[in-house]
Amino acid sequence: MAKNQTIKSVKGTTDFYPEEMALRTWLYNRIRQLSESFGYEEYEGPMLETFELYAAKSGEELVEKQSYVFEDRGGDKIALRPELTPSLARMVAKKQGQLNFPLRWWSFGPFWRYERPQKGRTREFFQWNIDMVGLDSPESDAELIIIAAEFLKGFGLTSKDVQIKINHRALMQEQLVKLGISEDLIPPAFQLIDKKDKLKFEKWQDYAIEIGFSNNQLDQLNELLDNKELWKESETLSRIFEIVEAYGLSDYVSFDFSIIRGLLYYTGTVFEAWDTGGEHRAIFGGGRYDNLVGDVGGNPISGVGFAVGNLVLSLILEQMGLTPDYSKTPADVFVTVFSEELMLESIKIGQELRSAGIKTASHLKLSKLGSQFKYADRIGARLALVFGPDEFDADEVKIKNLQSGDQIAVKRDQLVNKITDLLE
Amino acid sequence: MAKNQTIKSVKGTTDFYPEEMALRTWLYNRIRQLSESFGYEEYEGPMLETFELYAAKSGEELVEKQSYVFEDRGGDKIALRPELTPSLARMVAKKQGQLNFPLRWWSFGPFWRYERPQKGRTREFFQWNIDMVGLDSPESDAELIIIAAEFLKGFGLTSKDVQIKINHRALMQEQLVKLGISEDLIPPAFQLIDKKDKLKFEKWQDYAIEIGFSNNQLDQLNELLDNKELWKESETLSRIFEIVEAYGLSDYVSFDFSIIRGLLYYTGTVFEAWDTGGEHRAIFGGGRYDNLVGDVGGNPISGVGFAVGNLVLSLILEQMGLTPDYSKTPADVFVTVFSEELMLESIKIGQELRSAGIKTASHLKLSKLGSQFKYADRIGARLALVFGPDEFDADEVKIKNLQSGDQIAVKRDQLVNKITDLLE
Repeated sequence: MAKNQTIKSVKGTTDFYPEEMALRTWLYNRIRQLSESFGYEEYEGPMLETFELYAAKSGEELVEKQSYVFEDRGGDKIALRPELTPSLARMVAKKQGQLNFPLRWWSFGPFWRYERPQKGRTREFFQWNIDMVGLDSPESDAELIIIAAEFLKGFGLTSKDVQIKINHRALMQEQLVKLGISEDLIPPAFQLIDKKDKLKFEKWQDYAIEIGFSNNQLDQLNELLDNKELWKESETLSRIFEIVEAYGLSDYVSFDFSIIRGLLYYTGTVFEAWDTGGEHRAIFGGGRYDNLVGDVGGNPISGVGFAVGNLVLSLILEQMGLTPDYSKTPADVFVTVFSEELMLESIKIGQELRSAGIKTASHLKLSKLGSQFKYADRIGARLALVFGPDEFDADEVKIKNLQSGDQIAVKRDQLVNKITDLLE
Repeated sequence: MAKNQTIKSVKGTTDFYPEEMALRTWLYNRIRQLSESFGYEEYEGPMLETFELYAAKSGEELVEKQSYVFEDRGGDKIALRPELTPSLARMVAKKQGQLNFPLRWWSFGPFWRYERPQKGRTREFFQWNIDMVGLDSPESDAELIIIAAEFLKGFGLTSKDVQIKINHRALMQEQLVKLGISEDLIPPAFQLIDKKDKLKFEKWQDYAIEIGFSNNQLDQLNELLDNKELWKESETLSRIFEIVEAYGLSDYVSFDFSIIRGLLYYTGTVFEAWDTGGEHRAIFGGGRYDNLVGDVGGNPISGVGFAVGNLVLSLILEQMGLTPDYSKTPADVFVTVFSEELMLESIKIGQELRSAGIKTASHLKLSKLGSQFKYADRIGARLALVFGPDEFDADEVKIKNLQSGDQIAVKRDQLVNKITDLLE
């Protein structure tokens, strides 16, 4: 055994063995089905982008502390993408004259952030991104919020398990101005609100005073944060709630003045999906961005979208017992080999089944039939075929049901039909 | 217009707009279908690996010149994976005691090599990897070669368009020893053979003399390279050809003593798929590796596999006119908006259709009906729905066929059925 010297994987990356891969593919397929049902098209940006693309807008923490940045062999400063929206903006800007707006685009791929790996967070992770670009209306905000709610509901998560909390940056700005917060204190005030859930209350209050809030302003801010009706002062949010209600998803969507989103580029509606039944944590988030396409050199055009990481979601589904059963087999039928002389013919039987669309694995060396059955059983095959001298003489193949142990013999020319029946 | 300052993408990366993405997805689906038909399971390695993983075995050019290597924020030396086989070996070594051998595994994902981008080659590219691990038999070599041939044939490529050329490293070694080539000259001799197609004949001969071949040995080597029957001296190759013939794929597979594969880790059968109808170039390659799992710290176990890049393949299919038509629509049905008052109800019609599994895009702002039809037509929708005051009063929806221009009105409760019929 040389196990101790096994070369390690990189911390925070994932080895997707077939079972883990099956879960990712299951998730990807659900995402595809939902995205396409709303008329969204799949796209994908590069995984390497220039550092410049993120430098302006992605938020200091993401760019300066979390992104993987390096110089390539030609001396260019490259980043492994920590998020997709800047690539989307760049791609839109590049072909702006040729695209049919509004775009409805979605994507599923890998991203990298240098963070401390923990349960539900890895350095290399997968993310679903879905965006509508080129239409600025409360109805388009609502469509993305509805997709987010349908996504969660589709797994069997109830409105007690999850909530999509929404807010609007213009509403926040307006309310802060009403408190007498000066223009230049607004961005730090947004950050303050963002930190509400992350700091202890006393620490959070100290931080507020520190950045320039008066005691009175702080009291008023706390009142705002508790006000569940404040959305009525926003036409956009009012319309969003109306549409969400028409869709029958009101239970899943609520107003929360503390939702702000860390990223600098959001300008309008912002929202976050929260695990409210379990550990009370954000699952994913998104919002409207007005300036992103303009900032990367295109004509200004508004977009709205969100991004969902695969990991927190998988974790929640796992905790709720909502992940599917993956005891699936790579092959429904396993073709054994009886002898050297009959091996070639056994391989040809496998070919016949595959041509008929039946997933078939062939045994490819001489070994005891018992050990071949055991292997077939371990990989989860349902039927094993035996083609020995008796079967050869009778122009038959023996089919063994690996669950029941029953065996039947069928004529060679009936084999495909019989197996198709048995697998139904 | 601010077009000139548009932030650029990184050289050698690809923006997958929906059309390019549809091609990649089409390819991925074909790969999935074929791989699964032979009982192979999908897996995926990390995209970041330690530099150490590649240092030993991937070949000097790949590691020292072409791979993206950098230090992460913690000072670890990381590589963007230039190939998958070392990750496969590492993953097998890690769970060696728990896996059911032979493994049949496949994967499709991104890779990076710092090369000069050109037609058919990018720095960021996608690759299909398929391997059988834990069985060393000519029959398993043959299975991979058959999968490779079926893959090419499945696109409509004939044996005149493509050839899978096979060879065996033991056969080569044996033959070189027969020429009196000394043990330590064997690796450079392999490199020499590998360069045959890449250098002008005179230069290649000079190179042979330079590394230590005598004129006589060089003549004999040239004879070997022209000998199309040499495979008969290899039991493994003889058996492979026998199986390939049983499979009816003899036309697609031929012996070629010049096939060697650059990678250091191949130890047995090696093969390459060649574009023989067009520009005479290798499309992809693979072979048997005996030491890879052992080299990364596992118990020695043999594997065989190959890897196909998406780009050369796409290029050839494009040149041959074998790529499918991508004039597909993101939405079969487009729901227009007639007025402010009826917008909500129009959105609900969209919801009804989606619930019935119909891909439906909703218009989400007030605009002229003519421009809504134009948009629906541009995105390729087949039907557009109109729900105005007349339809509201009659409890109907108008369905417009965007190709013919025909319009019909149907009752609300008949809508889903009618549209399902029309889309069939």
